[in-house]
Amino acid sequence: MNPRLLFAFVWISVYPVSTLAGESPATDVSAARMAERIEALSRFGANPEGGVSRVAFSDADIAGREYIRELMREAGLEVRVDTAGNIIGRREGSEPGLPAIMFGSHIDSVPGGGNYDGDVGVIGAIEVVEVLEENGVATRHPLEVVSFTDEEGGLVGSVAMTIGLDDSHLDDTSHSGLTVREGIRAVGGDPDRLDLARRKPGELTAFIELHIEQGAILDESDTDIGIVEGIVGIHWWNVVIEGFANHAGTTPMNRRRDALLSAAELALEINRIATSMPGRQVATVGRIRAEPGAPNVIPGRVVMSLEIRDLATAKITQVFNGVETAAARIAEERDTPIRFEPTGVASLPAPTDERMRGIIAAAADGLNLSYQVMPSGAGHDAQDMTHIAPTGMIFVPSRDGVSHSPDEFTSPDDMANGAKVLLETVLAIDRGGLNQSTDPQ
Amino acid sequence: MNPRLLFAFVWISVYPVSTLAGESPATDVSAARMAERIEALSRFGANPEGGVSRVAFSDADIAGREYIRELMREAGLEVRVDTAGNIIGRREGSEPGLPAIMFGSHIDSVPGGGNYDGDVGVIGAIEVVEVLEENGVATRHPLEVVSFTDEEGGLVGSVAMTIGLDDSHLDDTSHSGLTVREGIRAVGGDPDRLDLARRKPGELTAFIELHIEQGAILDESDTDIGIVEGIVGIHWWNVVIEGFANHAGTTPMNRRRDALLSAAELALEINRIATSMPGRQVATVGRIRAEPGAPNVIPGRVVMSLEIRDLATAKITQVFNGVETAAARIAEERDTPIRFEPTGVASLPAPTDERMRGIIAAAADGLNLSYQVMPSGAGHDAQDMTHIAPTGMIFVPSRDGVSHSPDEFTSPDDMANGAKVLLETVLAIDRGGLNQSTDPQ
Repeated sequence: MNPRLLFAFVWISVYPVSTLAGESPATDVSAARMAERIEALSRFGANPEGGVSRVAFSDADIAGREYIRELMREAGLEVRVDTAGNIIGRREGSEPGLPAIMFGSHIDSVPGGGNYDGDVGVIGAIEVVEVLEENGVATRHPLEVVSFTDEEGGLVGSVAMTIGLDDSHLDDTSHSGLTVREGIRAVGGDPDRLDLARRKPGELTAFIELHIEQGAILDESDTDIGIVEGIVGIHWWNVVIEGFANHAGTTPMNRRRDALLSAAELALEINRIATSMPGRQVATVGRIRAEPGAPNVIPGRVVMSLEIRDLATAKITQVFNGVETAAARIAEERDTPIRFEPTGVASLPAPTDERMRGIIAAAADGLNLSYQVMPSGAGHDAQDMTHIAPTGMIFVPSRDGVSHSPDEFTSPDDMANGAKVLLETVLAIDRGGLNQSTDPQ
Repeated sequence: MNPRLLFAFVWISVYPVSTLAGESPATDVSAARMAERIEALSRFGANPEGGVSRVAFSDADIAGREYIRELMREAGLEVRVDTAGNIIGRREGSEPGLPAIMFGSHIDSVPGGGNYDGDVGVIGAIEVVEVLEENGVATRHPLEVVSFTDEEGGLVGSVAMTIGLDDSHLDDTSHSGLTVREGIRAVGGDPDRLDLARRKPGELTAFIELHIEQGAILDESDTDIGIVEGIVGIHWWNVVIEGFANHAGTTPMNRRRDALLSAAELALEINRIATSMPGRQVATVGRIRAEPGAPNVIPGRVVMSLEIRDLATAKITQVFNGVETAAARIAEERDTPIRFEPTGVASLPAPTDERMRGIIAAAADGLNLSYQVMPSGAGHDAQDMTHIAPTGMIFVPSRDGVSHSPDEFTSPDDMANGAKVLLETVLAIDRGGLNQSTDPQ
């Protein structure tokens, strides 16, 4: 018998096992404790504006990770760091051999970030275990609480756990200044043995991530819980518009081939097209550069970004086709050729598991919390986890939809609601809920 | 008697004086000689694309200036460099005490420039003197051929000659890397005694500049000569559009305050307004920056340039008022405040002398050359000279309107046409034509 199994048996014998049909322990989720821990975590990398700059692999990140490991240990979890630097706290289950239920998020931030993005999911996951402990609730499946490595730098930890990091990923310079490879080593991982961090399909019963919405849908509609139907796919292009650079003083208005006017018309068309179709697709021009870029020279060339996101690749394609058609007309009318260069940054839509959505909806219902099914417009570690496990995602409201900003805020009650739904979801999955659930949509 | 006057008397006695009513010497203007000299000048600062990068104060500029001084000396001019670095070649007149007729342009280029901007005016001015010499034509007024210092860096030489350079001008870094102060010293001027370079109103009978059009109006209409009615005024603003930066994935289309969409609509409105009024006003957005400038962030702020040019300040104001009205509507509709920050760069319209325009028109008529009266959309040394002397400006065609580019081209015949008109204009002014002429408009 290996020592870990021995430990599990000893552990199970120490704690009483609640009945599966007993009263919900979710009432013991503590908003105050969660808020206090969010506050404690916010000290690591605190910035003057009241948020954090706790970029992955920084000293602040390393200190914050130590705090999380301590919380996990206090909650009775057996804590390890995998070779990708992911912190994993495990609580054994009562039925040997069952695959673990994993839940968690991340604690690294963007530069100049806030105190809730990722943090709520990690603190919430620990809260769930804490409440199980306090109520003496054992689960059939092992539970694993995860805090992923460097989410903001490209979902590093979850990519490593699922599809695997390649060298180009590892050679990237992270926000900390270290390469990802150096950073993984700095947080106790081993970038030369990343295969040990991979989890195979079937190795986990499910993955669930609690996260702030980062948008204003829940806040504005006064809804408690968002049930994520999937993480949108993201396609990026560089749009290159060729005009003719010329003297802005000597070239009459009717003799110009002004690339910026074409770009302006196209930007408005992109917005019109994305807005005119039913659905929740979004299309954005976030970057624009006119060349040569002098006030007294007619722009001869404009390069601008185009990003389209949707839950369905077909919808992304539909929007893009509309944009291409508009661009062809503008290019013709203004004699300014327009081309679209796809960039390397594109991710496929990652739908969550429909049974999982049903379980989360039932959990919210049982707790008398309002909910709505919605896409996640932002990327999350959960999107990688869909490759290896039935995955669900729970959103809680972001005040005014503000995120990646020191002004990011989610109330203690909203955080606690999320943790309650997470707890009920974990328990339902543990009871075999994935075999019974139906999609709430 | 001072030595210069002695020289003048000796010189006048050597050359026969033609009758003022004699046959025009303009037939002796040599297109071949001008082309050969343009070609020779183009070797100083030649760039691989076939143009020149002869920025003021560079080694190439200094070598080119030496070539010009040599040509001036060969044409019989007495050459000096004033304290602002302007090269001035003087030919005395037959009637002592008359103020000089000055004509010329500049030989410095923009970085990556062409072989005609400025150069045609200097080579053409020397050609005029050369032909006078060859035909033994004396003039009543002294003639001064000028090659101004650092035109492309802000009309440095002509500002010094007229309204005067201030310290902020002198401390500017020129394209050469030297400050203007250092540059003036490098070309033989004396920045500490710039007052000696100033010419007072009345000190010159007239100033005439021959220049390439730098636009396509003459080329496209197959017109030989442009008679400049004035150099346009130039007003610059920074347009600041405030939206709200937010996550491009989590913010639905109908919850955005996208500063770039407002900027795009405004750029199109600026074009529409400038185009919808009668007249030759131009309005340009040449520079644009979205902040934070990431493909996945909705622009929270856009800063773009606005330039409006016209011969009449009232027209510039009229266009700007239209733009402000449109901006107020867009700001309101899109909830994105827009403000206009005037920048330091603005010049007043500089109309040429109407009698001068009549003289140039008569000269062209006499030579059977077609002409049209037109504004100069570009700035020129002539605009400064309007402050101290009746000023005229003669344009010759630029092929396809291309300028500030190695592709800049004006044919030898067109250059020669310009020099012929310049010669006839100088002779007409010398005959007292400013007292008889009427505006051709």
